[in-house]
Amino acid sequence: MVALTEEMKTALATMKAFPVATASADGWPNVVPIGFVELVDDETIWIADNFMKKTLANIRENPKMSVYVWGPETKGCFQIKGEVELKTEGPEFAKMQETVRAKMAQAPAKGLMVMKIHEVYTCSPGPDAGDRLL
Amino acid sequence: MVALTEEMKTALATMKAFPVATASADGWPNVVPIGFVELVDDETIWIADNFMKKTLANIRENPKMSVYVWGPETKGCFQIKGEVELKTEGPEFAKMQETVRAKMAQAPAKGLMVMKIHEVYTCSPGPDAGDRLL
Repeated sequence: MVALTEEMKTALATMKAFPVATASADGWPNVVPIGFVELVDDETIWIADNFMKKTLANIRENPKMSVYVWGPETKGCFQIKGEVELKTEGPEFAKMQETVRAKMAQAPAKGLMVMKIHEVYTCSPGPDAGDRLL
Repeated sequence: MVALTEEMKTALATMKAFPVATASADGWPNVVPIGFVELVDDETIWIADNFMKKTLANIRENPKMSVYVWGPETKGCFQIKGEVELKTEGPEFAKMQETVRAKMAQAPAKGLMVMKIHEVYTCSPGPDAGDRLL
């Protein structure tokens, strides 16, 4: 696992929605915008499942995820890859439900995806795009 | 193949950058923002490769792509899936180079990915998220 830098953590906190990509066991990529993506420690991201169908099915058969952080308030673009553990019960799941429902009372908050950060790449345009940062 | 609706075509034209997802043969998803994503007919999207590394490697071993269209000027979110053919020569490739370099003279424009649209899903939040539209 790797730990995000302070600059990356600041950028991540400015994002309103994140492009979250997964892949099915037979190789079909899937990308959707997800609102609840939060860093819980330097190496771990929580993603809440409110309305997921294909993302959830993909994670069950292939627990790998890619997300990028890039927007009007970030300096450049970086992409995170990591493995995901799905939780639908227990203290972390309950904490996620509490946090999500504090923002949106009727949110299903039906699952918690715990992503351990394995690799970070730059996705800013230019010849260095795609190079590994961490 | 399926043809985008007029509303989808209008939404697509408002986008400045698109989250483009692919997957490696061993199932690692990859998502990056790509600026040049253009509809060339109702069923076909051109994606220009300026600085791609992992996206290009993934398409060479697994020619499948997922992209979503969602932003401040779109009404809701929709996601496109399709198979991709890579072109690095020929009249379509030359046309892509001309179009890209008209906007950015020094652009590498080193490849053209021609995506045939196979499926379209909604990615607006709510219980219908993930349902197939086309």
